[in-house]
Amino acid sequence: MKPLGPIPPGYEANAQGRLMIGSHDVAALIEAAGDTPLFVYHLGMVARRIDRLRAAIPSGLEIHYAIKANPFAPLVSAIVTMVDGFDVASDGELAHAIGAGMAAERISFAGPGKKARELEAAIRVGATINLESEHEADRALSIGEALGLKPRLAVRINPEFELRGSGMRMGGGAKPFGIDQHRVPALIRRLVQAGVDYRGLHIFAGSQSLDGQAIIEAQANSVALAKRIDEETGTRAPLVNLGGGFGVPYFAGDVALDVETIGAALAEQVDHDAARYAIELGRWLVAEAGVYLARVVDRKESHGKTFLVTDGGLHHQLAASGNFGTVVRRNYPVAVATKFGFVAEEEASVVGCLCTPLDRLADDAGLPRAEPGDVIAVFLAGAYGATASPSAFLGHPAAREIAISSESAVILT
Amino acid sequence: MKPLGPIPPGYEANAQGRLMIGSHDVAALIEAAGDTPLFVYHLGMVARRIDRLRAAIPSGLEIHYAIKANPFAPLVSAIVTMVDGFDVASDGELAHAIGAGMAAERISFAGPGKKARELEAAIRVGATINLESEHEADRALSIGEALGLKPRLAVRINPEFELRGSGMRMGGGAKPFGIDQHRVPALIRRLVQAGVDYRGLHIFAGSQSLDGQAIIEAQANSVALAKRIDEETGTRAPLVNLGGGFGVPYFAGDVALDVETIGAALAEQVDHDAARYAIELGRWLVAEAGVYLARVVDRKESHGKTFLVTDGGLHHQLAASGNFGTVVRRNYPVAVATKFGFVAEEEASVVGCLCTPLDRLADDAGLPRAEPGDVIAVFLAGAYGATASPSAFLGHPAAREIAISSESAVILT
Repeated sequence: MKPLGPIPPGYEANAQGRLMIGSHDVAALIEAAGDTPLFVYHLGMVARRIDRLRAAIPSGLEIHYAIKANPFAPLVSAIVTMVDGFDVASDGELAHAIGAGMAAERISFAGPGKKARELEAAIRVGATINLESEHEADRALSIGEALGLKPRLAVRINPEFELRGSGMRMGGGAKPFGIDQHRVPALIRRLVQAGVDYRGLHIFAGSQSLDGQAIIEAQANSVALAKRIDEETGTRAPLVNLGGGFGVPYFAGDVALDVETIGAALAEQVDHDAARYAIELGRWLVAEAGVYLARVVDRKESHGKTFLVTDGGLHHQLAASGNFGTVVRRNYPVAVATKFGFVAEEEASVVGCLCTPLDRLADDAGLPRAEPGDVIAVFLAGAYGATASPSAFLGHPAAREIAISSESAVILT
Repeated sequence: MKPLGPIPPGYEANAQGRLMIGSHDVAALIEAAGDTPLFVYHLGMVARRIDRLRAAIPSGLEIHYAIKANPFAPLVSAIVTMVDGFDVASDGELAHAIGAGMAAERISFAGPGKKARELEAAIRVGATINLESEHEADRALSIGEALGLKPRLAVRINPEFELRGSGMRMGGGAKPFGIDQHRVPALIRRLVQAGVDYRGLHIFAGSQSLDGQAIIEAQANSVALAKRIDEETGTRAPLVNLGGGFGVPYFAGDVALDVETIGAALAEQVDHDAARYAIELGRWLVAEAGVYLARVVDRKESHGKTFLVTDGGLHHQLAASGNFGTVVRRNYPVAVATKFGFVAEEEASVVGCLCTPLDRLADDAGLPRAEPGDVIAVFLAGAYGATASPSAFLGHPAAREIAISSESAVILT
């Protein structure tokens, strides 16, 4: 038996023993969507998550949403009014953010290898470009000049420090992201001389960390670094994006972050200057609000092991299969949604419908007995699910996606 | 410096030092396609590959193409006339195979968790269903009865043996694929009694093996197993699909398979009965015929390391980034296509344009000096590339794809 990850708080069973998402029975959600496989996103949970964070951090400190985590249109539109800005990573995401109603001056565009058409799109609408290299700065300046527009430019720093314990380190050594910190002051001076609209600094030291002290330390380092760069350049960064890095507990033994402690530390770090800072989060805001539902199509035995074969799989939920950024596969939180909270009766492995041994959703899990027709829920599906998976692989249809708005019966597709 | 995988034979530079694919300069191919990132598939190379295999194996033994490896429509249409059958893994692939002109009776449909609509589609058109479980057999029988059609059914066996040295083992233990071999005779008797059109056996022991002796051994085991099952059931499987498992050399030190030796062994194994057998290949037929082209957008230094940032990445070529089925990341064959065959001048890492440290195309590679505008080629991109990658991730456009037909200038999109 291998352990399953912890089911996020807020999910309960109804009297029929079926998983409820908000006020909705999963059976009703599947009927409304038409079929499985299905992603359901609970916008009320996202709102409560953001409210909790807002209460924990100093007043005025901005919360930005990195829409790469989940670009599903009804979800992005709902989040517009909940946060202070969006971070985008392509011209596609930029257009999506504008389309959702986010003001261009509240959008920042980070990411290496921005193409000419992307720089032009950002300059035309007035989004902030987080510069990833001196060469990108030159290109943005010359495109701005050609367009007769003053670009809004911020500088992304590759910091000397890293976010300890993060799933992905994005600082503390040679990196394709940002500009090594010792070269940043010269670039800022050049940008100011060139007369651009200097928008500040972006420091992203890592992601998916569950070590609160490490996050506090990285934030303190980021605040100190921003102040040092201000001093060295005689400028004042209008906004310092401290990055994110807040992880969620995917696996057995993982413990959720204490954002109240992180928020209290932030208050001390930023002192009376909170409005100058932003944190940028994707996963932490939306992961727990999403559930992936797949139906059991076959139940089979092989060499004494039980396999539940579903109509879903890694083409929709690559990360849960253990094939995206993890070395050792571990089980996400998975449950039988039509027997939710029932006692585990057997050991079974949940697999997808792809004809490859990579397509596993839960290995050797303790589950109530599930039969064809039962529905499997994979939790933490609100971030890096549908769009971070190879949806065209093997020619199956894309997963359906719906969002439910608060506790009411409104379903958005 | 980390080694690069071996560039497949058949790729040369022209007088301008640019990679040629068939008779085409990559610069011309990119112009014809409109932009990078671009997959180019060389149909002449696929044809030569199949010719070579055909010459190596006994006459009459069927070659089937598993279209999951590369479903690009012009390529699939071209392969129809080169092989004896297609294997599909979903109703989407089934429709695609029929649309490309493959006769339904030459199509087999394997894969766990077939949905009711998939079984129905296969029975309606008369494709062979490779049954993955007794429960699937019951479902196919009842759908056939409801439709008043006699289903074409084969049985996929989960063999007791495995394909040694394969990248993915699909036999030799508890597996979600096929039916444990000791239960197969009872199922075949039941199918025959039910009056179905019994089409034979499917045995798939593994994939991506570069160990020719292991493949020969698995094929011998498969032939022997099929004969034993025939004897036990008093039937004669009309076709025995011996599976595939032929690997291609992705990484430094990998050596290409000697298919002539495998073919000679097959001739002995199948004796005078070659027409009763098929081998089913995907990767081996098409991988080497594909090249992924991405343009260098930025060249940057960080802590003494050089990064070439391209407009491509793992959203198109997930496997090359090391995030699909590999535990330790190693470099695929990668080259500067606009300085092809030039001597290595520096150590550089090639990354994609996604804002994640996972997006690497070559780590610490020895390359000629490349500047923005140069084109990077990632070889072995003909299989498990575009459709096996999370194309919607971060909102970038899908890769373009073109096929070139033989040595002529015909470009298919």
